[in-house]
Amino acid sequence: MTTPHSALPLVITMGDPAGIGPEIILKSFAQQPDLMKACFVAGDVAVMRQHAELLGMQVNLIPIETPAQVHELPQHALPVLQTGPSYPVALGQVSAVAGRMAADAVVWAAQAALRGEVSAVVTAPLHKKALSLAGVDHPGHTEMLQALAAAHQGVSVDAMPVRMMLTSPGLSTVLVSIHVSLRQAIEAVTQAQVLETLQITHRSWLALHGRAPRMVVAGLNPHAGEEGLFGSEEINDIAPAIAIAQQQGLQVSGPYPPDTVFMDAHSASGQASTDLVIAMYHDQGLIPVKYLGLAHGVNQTLGLPFVRTSPDHGTAFGIAGQGLADPSSLMAAIRVARGERLTSASRP
Amino acid sequence: MTTPHSALPLVITMGDPAGIGPEIILKSFAQQPDLMKACFVAGDVAVMRQHAELLGMQVNLIPIETPAQVHELPQHALPVLQTGPSYPVALGQVSAVAGRMAADAVVWAAQAALRGEVSAVVTAPLHKKALSLAGVDHPGHTEMLQALAAAHQGVSVDAMPVRMMLTSPGLSTVLVSIHVSLRQAIEAVTQAQVLETLQITHRSWLALHGRAPRMVVAGLNPHAGEEGLFGSEEINDIAPAIAIAQQQGLQVSGPYPPDTVFMDAHSASGQASTDLVIAMYHDQGLIPVKYLGLAHGVNQTLGLPFVRTSPDHGTAFGIAGQGLADPSSLMAAIRVARGERLTSASRP
Repeated sequence: MTTPHSALPLVITMGDPAGIGPEIILKSFAQQPDLMKACFVAGDVAVMRQHAELLGMQVNLIPIETPAQVHELPQHALPVLQTGPSYPVALGQVSAVAGRMAADAVVWAAQAALRGEVSAVVTAPLHKKALSLAGVDHPGHTEMLQALAAAHQGVSVDAMPVRMMLTSPGLSTVLVSIHVSLRQAIEAVTQAQVLETLQITHRSWLALHGRAPRMVVAGLNPHAGEEGLFGSEEINDIAPAIAIAQQQGLQVSGPYPPDTVFMDAHSASGQASTDLVIAMYHDQGLIPVKYLGLAHGVNQTLGLPFVRTSPDHGTAFGIAGQGLADPSSLMAAIRVARGERLTSASRP
Repeated sequence: MTTPHSALPLVITMGDPAGIGPEIILKSFAQQPDLMKACFVAGDVAVMRQHAELLGMQVNLIPIETPAQVHELPQHALPVLQTGPSYPVALGQVSAVAGRMAADAVVWAAQAALRGEVSAVVTAPLHKKALSLAGVDHPGHTEMLQALAAAHQGVSVDAMPVRMMLTSPGLSTVLVSIHVSLRQAIEAVTQAQVLETLQITHRSWLALHGRAPRMVVAGLNPHAGEEGLFGSEEINDIAPAIAIAQQQGLQVSGPYPPDTVFMDAHSASGQASTDLVIAMYHDQGLIPVKYLGLAHGVNQTLGLPFVRTSPDHGTAFGIAGQGLADPSSLMAAIRVARGERLTSASRP
């Protein structure tokens, strides 16, 4: 008999050891031990100990060798699985060895997820330059995970399309495109891309939550184009994609005026009739979701064959090891990876 | 000796008499009589009486013939200046006569402002179709006011450029363009248009508040283009416009990443170091400002030779005369027209 998916341990990668990743993991464990039950760290035992000492924290770090060992440990222990060679690391400094250790943790965690040994992967922040110095070909987490998943399934990376979802308390949004110019973002608003976004979102949400998401779609233009008066993408691309998705049984409606759809979808109570808003470009979705509280923002990669979330901030080298880092976003990322709603904070 | 500008009465146009304009004016007077001191209504006495009766409100409506009479009235009186012929109006119905009465009020108020007889014009909502049925050539308030101001100054309408400013408690934003497609909005992000936006905003704010505004400018692209990686408008157009404005002594900085500049500029306390954000297109500015609370949103037209604000909602024909309309946005519009900050509500 196989272990039920939800009973599997959850892995947290430690991130770049020179940044705040280890600190926010240790603080999450200290502040919310219940939340961290059945979690373990993929990374480096010495790095985790170094950060705990720097912070003056008494944490019972226990090395493990397999995810299954998580369930055999005493209460109040934080398991750490060594994912590669250990090197001394200078805090707050970009280095190849730190990039290598961060990458080793991510690769190990992705492969464990692909083997079905963990319920989800939560990634602490890594540094793109350190990753590059370590000889990693991919610019960040998403591309690494996409490549590992594609290789595992024996398909090309193009056959493993992903989308970014951002979640704050009360609002989740999925973006059709991310790091391209606004001109290119408009070009990406095609019927195929919008439909693919809806399908990826539907499948990922269904897998995590056990039910179909209730999606609403923002238009591209002011007032969603006002019947073609201010742009035709709603008529030619977005509405047809929604119609096809509806025929396929997806719970989706729109396009709606961008300046009110996020406000309407927001629910401080968690009792909204909408689960998420499909945004046509980066800032359309990120302006409202960040407005709700950056400290609690969670980034989720949809389309991978496993659940992956991360805090919505970087390595913060400038404050590494100083005890100043806020673990809220990481704790929120763990909640989202477990399929919980972020209802702790009302609209701030 | 001329009357000091701030001691002049403030005129509120009644809006389309078939809509909620008269109701929100009457409710503002009933709920906040102090706020309504030295205000008068431009419109139709019979319409105002009709709405007061429908709502069962005991309001002391006093007809006046000149703005100066406002200061001679007893306490607890709402002065109404008759601005044109009176017609019977069916509530909730689009009609040429209602459009005509609404237009007469706007024309009268604009001319009074241009003659220096009122401190500011606050406009209750009118209905664009009724305006058109009444034979008015302009699609809405802004174009009417622009044409009247240009004619008064003997210049073409092109020589009277205006910009829209939206204010919610804690955030104000001015838009480079409004009702055009996102593609056209990108084309409008030129050095000249951005600079003109900064100059109009500077002059209008200075005239109303007696000091220069502290402005921050949003980029157009994600991460404000990330040094040219995601678009070049920041480098080629926006930054040069800011540099010229700075040379001219304007207090302005940017461009900043769109997804955090609004959050950073927001101030629930009213103690922000920033007065307003210059947004590159409609939804970039309206998503965050509406998120903060639609009921309190205020629309302001910058660039006219007088102060003009309006509530950020329409005629709401569907609920006209039923006592359901919320006067909050109109009351906020009066505050903004007086140069007050909206600090009543924190981020909702």
